[in-house]
Amino acid sequence: MEHGAKKSADLILTNGTILPLSPHSSPIPDGALAVSEGCITALGPKAHVENYFEARRTIDAGGGLIMPGLVNAHTHAPMALFRGMADDLPLKVWLEEYIFPAEARWVDADFVYWGALLSCAEMIRSGTTTFADGYFFEDQVARAVQESGLRAVLGQGILDFLTPDSPSTAESLRKAEAFLRQTHVSSLIRPALFPHSLYTCSPGLLKQCQNLAERYGSPLIIHLAETQMELKDVYNKYGQSPIKSMEKYGLLSPSLIACHCVWLSESEMDLLATRGVKVVHNPESNMKLASGVAPVPELLARGIPVGLGTDGCASNNNQDIFQEMDTAAKLHKVYRLDPTVMPADVVLHMATLGGARVLGLDEEIGSLAVGKRADLIILDLNRPHLLPIYNFASHLVYAATGADVRDVIVEGRLIMQNRKLVNLDEEKILGEARRWNKKIADSVHPKT
Amino acid sequence: MEHGAKKSADLILTNGTILPLSPHSSPIPDGALAVSEGCITALGPKAHVENYFEARRTIDAGGGLIMPGLVNAHTHAPMALFRGMADDLPLKVWLEEYIFPAEARWVDADFVYWGALLSCAEMIRSGTTTFADGYFFEDQVARAVQESGLRAVLGQGILDFLTPDSPSTAESLRKAEAFLRQTHVSSLIRPALFPHSLYTCSPGLLKQCQNLAERYGSPLIIHLAETQMELKDVYNKYGQSPIKSMEKYGLLSPSLIACHCVWLSESEMDLLATRGVKVVHNPESNMKLASGVAPVPELLARGIPVGLGTDGCASNNNQDIFQEMDTAAKLHKVYRLDPTVMPADVVLHMATLGGARVLGLDEEIGSLAVGKRADLIILDLNRPHLLPIYNFASHLVYAATGADVRDVIVEGRLIMQNRKLVNLDEEKILGEARRWNKKIADSVHPKT
Repeated sequence: MEHGAKKSADLILTNGTILPLSPHSSPIPDGALAVSEGCITALGPKAHVENYFEARRTIDAGGGLIMPGLVNAHTHAPMALFRGMADDLPLKVWLEEYIFPAEARWVDADFVYWGALLSCAEMIRSGTTTFADGYFFEDQVARAVQESGLRAVLGQGILDFLTPDSPSTAESLRKAEAFLRQTHVSSLIRPALFPHSLYTCSPGLLKQCQNLAERYGSPLIIHLAETQMELKDVYNKYGQSPIKSMEKYGLLSPSLIACHCVWLSESEMDLLATRGVKVVHNPESNMKLASGVAPVPELLARGIPVGLGTDGCASNNNQDIFQEMDTAAKLHKVYRLDPTVMPADVVLHMATLGGARVLGLDEEIGSLAVGKRADLIILDLNRPHLLPIYNFASHLVYAATGADVRDVIVEGRLIMQNRKLVNLDEEKILGEARRWNKKIADSVHPKT
Repeated sequence: MEHGAKKSADLILTNGTILPLSPHSSPIPDGALAVSEGCITALGPKAHVENYFEARRTIDAGGGLIMPGLVNAHTHAPMALFRGMADDLPLKVWLEEYIFPAEARWVDADFVYWGALLSCAEMIRSGTTTFADGYFFEDQVARAVQESGLRAVLGQGILDFLTPDSPSTAESLRKAEAFLRQTHVSSLIRPALFPHSLYTCSPGLLKQCQNLAERYGSPLIIHLAETQMELKDVYNKYGQSPIKSMEKYGLLSPSLIACHCVWLSESEMDLLATRGVKVVHNPESNMKLASGVAPVPELLARGIPVGLGTDGCASNNNQDIFQEMDTAAKLHKVYRLDPTVMPADVVLHMATLGGARVLGLDEEIGSLAVGKRADLIILDLNRPHLLPIYNFASHLVYAATGADVRDVIVEGRLIMQNRKLVNLDEEKILGEARRWNKKIADSVHPKT
């Protein structure tokens, strides 16, 4: 082969350490990676890859780290426009006096579109290449995602009462089905349903959602066992805990993506494992809203797929998965007074291949391997807070932040290069965020 | 005055929102701030300040936020060279099998100097203008700080056994006194003593340190009531808890800066308040090492000054006070299942004026007011994760990171401009960090 013609690739990334994050893989120092038609066609030592491949375009990683893009397995992207609008409040006050009224007043297609674009910009900048979303007017999120070049699983929100985009439950369902039917706008977007929770959707409605999701082969995203308030509400309504109520109505299934799962008994965790339910851990949201500490080590010990999510910006207030990893690793240690739980590599897995598995995308993304989609990021390691380096997982979890990401590639296409967004007009997005800021702030703090 | 000559200033910062963070102050939109001879001489609406002052140099904040520089009230700057060397280990193993042996083998004047410079670069980049340190060869830290232009309280480390810089306790004390006597290298550096802890220093040695500190008017920095292991050790040695042992030997005083204070009873907190002891909270270190959750709301309720610290890079692993604020605000909420504890403004105070008070510097720094030293930072708000803005405190605590800092000024002198360090040769520092990285890594993971 040394003497034959080189294979052609669309893109070669070179001059960096490759962190494949596949099972049993090791870092490849001075590595290179070839991409063709959106997929990884080779990765290995630079000399080897460059000997076999030539590409129309080469990206020099500058001695940085080439790793899989991060997976944000739970957020509400449009809520970026509510970032910091209400904090440090009791849960009920926060939800009923701030968030719900603000949503009723402000959320329309324009809000969702610009809020989603703002979040896409934030997520790209901080190294997320795939996210799972749940909100209203989700077709507008799809529009934003398509423009951004990101990969996403997008859940159309469904509630059992008036929502910003539907006057009735029936209309909400019709809208959701239309969303599943029509949203195949690109290979990067997978439509889903997001029936909000057991305390806002009746079991009957959830069953209808499940049937719909099954018909279209879509995931079902739900908030589950998040707070003690939910536990009490659901118990009062259905005489059982959230998990047991879901089981009773046959709603626990492998297509269910259960977000939060803070309040679980041992037997409920067994049930989640048996039913093949996927879980998303949102430590910063759970801390800020004082929801509680999810039993993540116990879920992982049962082989339950667990991803990492930021939750929406009204409850975090950013969408930086690097910071979420840091918090996830530290929270469980102090909660159990055991510094060995949730080690860095376990947390890093949750934010990459683990999250991909939760979203049903682990065959395609989440690690760097030949045949997988080329969703990856390049980190600039040439920074005071990132030296020395003894262990990459430790570095990514405990020292790095999203601001260290230099380039972002999704399905072989550069969507951020040298910290400049390629597809999005960032100044325009920031301007629209300021416009919404002014409108909303004037109503939150009425002028006297 | 409008018709008279304008007063001259050395520097005017303009075109930004000023966040003074003085008691009862409010943000000043479209503000300006004048600096002369290292002190703030005016701040207010831009039109007003520019009407009365003219300066040789003007810095345009570009619509960003002008606020006090942050105070990192506890770290071990040279340990940056051990960043990520050992994580996720049981406390005893981490300390006795990794940290202590690594210190014995590697810590010398060169290590301390380059490690401190690396930390100075990291801290300047993330908006810290004052830090309190404790380590060996502290004169080398002083040298690094002086070169960087930062402000610091520097504690010479003292232990009751062989240390990297002293073969005996007597020599350790002599070295410490020399450090107090000789370290008046600039108005920015205040020397202190750092007797490590009650489990590594005898009460007699602590008493000698206290006498020495009193003679020179210096603070005494100590690790106190950090872990359950310490509690047990001290109880076994002295028959009482760390706080009660300190009280018994007359070591609790207003010059004591007690770091961590995780394990305290109600009566011990009363005692700390009565004795005027200052406390530093290090939430990320306490989480990562699984030390526990310090009773910070209870300490604050007693009027005890509490600052915020990152601790050293072997136990965090970065020195970004923005991230530390985020963690401090969230940790206590989830620990108490109450989202109203540790609101953003309280945490922001800990990282500014509160931290300054802990270090005895609150008359000079920690807020922006006429007559105070001009230690301040400018944040770039024109970023997707920092829009919209409804509340500055919330934004700084929950959304921003150190990477959002654009400019850093200490005592009226620019030490970072447009994200470029002014006084330090960053490439040289990173190169030296890599040199140490290689030496240490070769010993941690011996080649087979």
